[in-house]
Amino acid sequence: MPMIQVDLRRDLFQAKGEAISKAIHAGLIEGLDMPADDLFQVYRPHDEGEIVFSPDFGGADRRDLVLIRVTMVHMFPADVKQRMYTAVARHLEAAGVRHDDVLISVVEVGFEDWYSGAPLSE
Amino acid sequence: MPMIQVDLRRDLFQAKGEAISKAIHAGLIEGLDMPADDLFQVYRPHDEGEIVFSPDFGGADRRDLVLIRVTMVHMFPADVKQRMYTAVARHLEAAGVRHDDVLISVVEVGFEDWYSGAPLSE
Amino acid sequence: MPMIQVDLRRDLFQAKGEAISKAIHAGLIEGLDMPADDLFQVYRPHDEGEIVFSPDFGGADRRDLVLIRVTMVHMFPADVKQRMYTAVARHLEAAGVRHDDVLISVVEVGFEDWYSGAPLSE
Repeated sequence: MPMIQVDLRRDLFQAKGEAISKAIHAGLIEGLDMPADDLFQVYRPHDEGEIVFSPDFGGADRRDLVLIRVTMVHMFPADVKQRMYTAVARHLEAAGVRHDDVLISVVEVGFEDWYSGAPLSE
Repeated sequence: MPMIQVDLRRDLFQAKGEAISKAIHAGLIEGLDMPADDLFQVYRPHDEGEIVFSPDFGGADRRDLVLIRVTMVHMFPADVKQRMYTAVARHLEAAGVRHDDVLISVVEVGFEDWYSGAPLSE
Repeated sequence: MPMIQVDLRRDLFQAKGEAISKAIHAGLIEGLDMPADDLFQVYRPHDEGEIVFSPDFGGADRRDLVLIRVTMVHMFPADVKQRMYTAVARHLEAAGVRHDDVLISVVEVGFEDWYSGAPLSE
């Protein structure tokens, strides 16, 4: 049950939000073997000046940062995470987001760290 | 010092924001034995299309997702977390939020991972 | 590659956003010996009622909370984190943000938990 939070420019979200959503989802399915109906994404469109970033730190050529936070259970080895990053960036590239503009940040949690609407046991 | 970040629809926040805030706070107090004056919540109201979710993944019947991120110190055993989830969902249900629409995601940190306005030591 | 997410009042962001950005960045450079071109910050301006907080929990005197979430690699000992908190709060104080109004929350991740626009290997 990965949960995705995306910070990006409002124009970009308006122009390509749906394609970006599908691309990220496709990348997670492909990279993590995630079930296709495991879909939880939040988009936070930003106005001018709200996303501040280095244009070239680490050797990338950034023009319009798309920040993708993935919260997921600690269960994937490093090479699977790497495969997921590559798959998400490749699908985003096809949706018109340059891979240099992608920043993915994973936060790992435990299985016990989720509640997802299960019936109340009282 | 749990810190709460909530993503939800703008209409829902406008209609029930205060009741939702009180319900989440009551659930944390009850579930974690948290002091009543330990209150740190951020609400992020969303427009149409910004919250994307599966209506039925994991067997829930979702119509209007309320995503609650809880950042807290790693100190609570799994059954206490479970008690907190149940308490938050029950209080939210009383405030008019169906428990199927609740998604809680916990991220654990250390005691040393907080600064909260203590006097500067220089 | 620390990644910074800041929740604050819209008025405050409009009046002092740039100074706040520079202050946080200066605090991280000073406190963590971070390279000056390692800059990734997202600001989320909030309207009335979206930031809910205790005015005095833990002995602070809060009037206008600025919540700073720092996601960074697990590699800094507790005293270095403490030095970073003090440096950020001091620089913010110089930018007109009272240190009592600052809340910093660190989340630690691994080196493998980042993708930052590296060329796709396929």
